[in-house]
Amino acid sequence: MSAHGRPQAPLMSNTQADRVKEVARLAGRPSRLRRREFLAEGPQAVREAVRLHLDRQDAGRDGVVVDVYATAEALERHTDIAALLDREDAPSLRRVTPDVLAAMSSTVTPQGFVAVCRFVDVPVEDVLAAGPRLVAVLVEVRDPGNAGTIIRAADSAGAGAVILTGASVDPYNPKTVRSTVGSLFHLPLVIAVELDGLIDRLREAGLTVLAADGYGATNLDDLQDASAARRFGSGDDDGPDESGSGSDEGAAGPSVSAVRLEDAGAWLFGNEAQGLPAEVTAGADARVAVPIYGSAESLNVGTAATVCLYASARAQR
Amino acid sequence: MSAHGRPQAPLMSNTQADRVKEVARLAGRPSRLRRREFLAEGPQAVREAVRLHLDRQDAGRDGVVVDVYATAEALERHTDIAALLDREDAPSLRRVTPDVLAAMSSTVTPQGFVAVCRFVDVPVEDVLAAGPRLVAVLVEVRDPGNAGTIIRAADSAGAGAVILTGASVDPYNPKTVRSTVGSLFHLPLVIAVELDGLIDRLREAGLTVLAADGYGATNLDDLQDASAARRFGSGDDDGPDESGSGSDEGAAGPSVSAVRLEDAGAWLFGNEAQGLPAEVTAGADARVAVPIYGSAESLNVGTAATVCLYASARAQR
Repeated sequence: MSAHGRPQAPLMSNTQADRVKEVARLAGRPSRLRRREFLAEGPQAVREAVRLHLDRQDAGRDGVVVDVYATAEALERHTDIAALLDREDAPSLRRVTPDVLAAMSSTVTPQGFVAVCRFVDVPVEDVLAAGPRLVAVLVEVRDPGNAGTIIRAADSAGAGAVILTGASVDPYNPKTVRSTVGSLFHLPLVIAVELDGLIDRLREAGLTVLAADGYGATNLDDLQDASAARRFGSGDDDGPDESGSGSDEGAAGPSVSAVRLEDAGAWLFGNEAQGLPAEVTAGADARVAVPIYGSAESLNVGTAATVCLYASARAQR
Repeated sequence: MSAHGRPQAPLMSNTQADRVKEVARLAGRPSRLRRREFLAEGPQAVREAVRLHLDRQDAGRDGVVVDVYATAEALERHTDIAALLDREDAPSLRRVTPDVLAAMSSTVTPQGFVAVCRFVDVPVEDVLAAGPRLVAVLVEVRDPGNAGTIIRAADSAGAGAVILTGASVDPYNPKTVRSTVGSLFHLPLVIAVELDGLIDRLREAGLTVLAADGYGATNLDDLQDASAARRFGSGDDDGPDESGSGSDEGAAGPSVSAVRLEDAGAWLFGNEAQGLPAEVTAGADARVAVPIYGSAESLNVGTAATVCLYASARAQR
């Protein structure tokens, strides 16, 4: 590590140091809320946090990383991260022993990197003012892993933002941060939004509001068929002309024509056990079900969200 | 529970009983392999296991459930399961105290039901002889939750089978069974298949072999566009005529025309860290990447599998 141009602070080796305990405490919500900081653990999350930090500073804004802690071995293995941290405007790096890193981390395998980051969430007004084309809204999604999966899927599908309502899981908890694999640092995140009035705000921002609902009357396949017919068809929008759409009254039903997947849209995803509240589904422009072709009773919310977000992304290209 | 017509065995209340320990031991692989039995836990998994058991017996075959253990409270809450278990040909039901159920179970919240089931896997020959239209193949997928997610997604997408190669996670481990939410009992499962020669066997069974590969040359979107153009277009298969496909040489490239999503297909999904082995991707008919529209580096294998399987299911309808 002598290749690093910046002066080095001494190796941290005392697992009982106050600083180590303070970092470890960020695994708990009270400490996070008090300090408005959270933990990014592992090379992928830390790399993305540092990148965002540098990008923001390049744009004249405050960075997001307070400190990076890393073992010598991890810095040698991940030379790309070491190079980022070697930049003049990089966040401060403290080298630590593996024991100190383990004491700081909430995971079994932090893989040599932990970063203390400032909260990255932004006001919902800012997000909606930017005119996003695709937004994922988590309405009381409670499982940390599911929330992480949806944030990562939203990032993959190119969504413009992820919004979490107040009763949803805290996205800064280590398990969610970990399961986003860095995506938490890729797209605007809004937290603790009041559910009350949210649908109106989404619609005022020009977004079609789609409630993902296994019991919904609108089949996602029909929406996709209608979108494909508009894109590939002769223009008369009459849906498939062969091999039948199979189910009900075809792709031209009123519930289908009312919404278009290619329009800017916000998908609402509900609680694992209860789904979306009735007042939410009632206020949406459509209640959309991901079709189940086999015998499964339902889809995991993370899986359903992935299918929905990718369907919109495809239609919107 | 006096409504039940069958004579009742006495309530099991001794958490130290041999039988309780034997059931609990099925959380471990050695015990499972020795007895060729595994645990289904929770109302959803147990319901689906009992349904399959009854269906099989109706068809003159052996059932899959050895014993069901349930608390009185769970039977009162889930009257549909109680009704199934009340049938003459139902597997034997033993009522147990909550303590006994907790001692049997590997989960924190078994929700009052545990069933001991016989292995349900079938030979790969039988599965391929049945002429499935859509098959999911797990090649060294190691995470129990990912395997469960893919099995559930395959069931949802109406796949005809799930095949696991020898080095993949044991699908009978409690975490995988749990995360399939009953789907393990819905479609034929093949385990411990030799990777060597598998691709040839799939192809001989009339299946197009698609390797899910983030670095693959074929974009899943292009395959879907080509499929949609054949279905909705004027028949000349010239792909999108407006809004451009954006990327490279459009939907008519050779890698795209070689495979058709609407044909019977087998998707291969690889290990979380390493992906698919080179000899596997080399042998496939196409290496297909799920497009990433945002900044995410990659997709979780469960997420990617869901998108791929649903893309095939849509095209095949």
